[in-house]
Amino acid sequence: MKIRFVTRNKHKFVEVSKALQEYGIKVEQLCLDKLEIQAKSLSDVVRFSLVVLYNVVGEPLVVEDAGLFIEALKGFPGVFSSYVFKTIGVNGILKLMENVSNRKAMFKSVVGYIDDSQIALFEGIVEGIIAYEPRGNMGFGFDPIFIPNGSEKTFAEMSVDEKNKFSHRAKAFRKLASWLIQDKFKR
Amino acid sequence: MKIRFVTRNKHKFVEVSKALQEYGIKVEQLCLDKLEIQAKSLSDVVRFSLVVLYNVVGEPLVVEDAGLFIEALKGFPGVFSSYVFKTIGVNGILKLMENVSNRKAMFKSVVGYIDDSQIALFEGIVEGIIAYEPRGNMGFGFDPIFIPNGSEKTFAEMSVDEKNKFSHRAKAFRKLASWLIQDKFKR
Repeated sequence: MKIRFVTRNKHKFVEVSKALQEYGIKVEQLCLDKLEIQAKSLSDVVRFSLVVLYNVVGEPLVVEDAGLFIEALKGFPGVFSSYVFKTIGVNGILKLMENVSNRKAMFKSVVGYIDDSQIALFEGIVEGIIAYEPRGNMGFGFDPIFIPNGSEKTFAEMSVDEKNKFSHRAKAFRKLASWLIQDKFKR
Repeated sequence: MKIRFVTRNKHKFVEVSKALQEYGIKVEQLCLDKLEIQAKSLSDVVRFSLVVLYNVVGEPLVVEDAGLFIEALKGFPGVFSSYVFKTIGVNGILKLMENVSNRKAMFKSVVGYIDDSQIALFEGIVEGIIAYEPRGNMGFGFDPIFIPNGSEKTFAEMSVDEKNKFSHRAKAFRKLASWLIQDKFKR
């Protein structure tokens, strides 16, 4: 089996390819823009992207959107994580978190699948804390300041396989994989 | 069980309500516009409507779009049936079909369901022929000139229950109903 994953992010492509290996699912990278809308939730963003992309590509495809939700910042940067990363970045987040003792945060991923008769969304969440300083040079985005519960390392200090044991993205894609293999063909 | 059916068309609402009675599913009419796009297929139209409406309503809902596809007219009026009906109407179609011996046509309906984690589309088709003159005053749209295979009557000469035995719309909604009852809760 093969899925077409629309992303320009090489890191995401590698993470997902490795996570889906054990399901025997191959991942093809489609380098297209996702036309993201400013929506209230990751699910809204993913749904719009899916429908627009399907009109362009015309073949079954997969889209993912993720965000970092920091409790003390009322969920910021949330659905705008990518934009916030490109502007104020990791240092901006650390500045906002200066003298904040509640470091709780979560990464959330929503994966969406579309074909001619359906759309299905799958969510993955990993809880953790915001580090006091950036550590590690692997991964991407806010990985250097996120420490998942159950580890001492930031995501940026982990190999792809290690990150996949914890990550929101791997969890969401594993749900997609189970569904593709077991449920999809029942209708 | 209850579904919210977005339509301003009273006839559609009655047809669907009756068709779903045997499944114990109640239908609530939501009088909103569907924001239809000019798309290549009914499925594309329905998907866009679903995603836009879900952003407005925020609750699970159902949308339907249908079209009359006339073989000798290369599928016209197809996805634009509603617009064509409001402009050139039944008489326009009959004029286009003057001296055309191939009267084959089909009505096609695509029903779409959306909730927070999925979209599902269901298709219903009824084949038949285009009458030589309009007959009957029940139903709506092109019903007075469509005679389904297996009947001598046009859709506009049939009661709602009789039309539902043949109709594209009833077929699509029955598929939705079976899915809602049997499959939806498996994930």
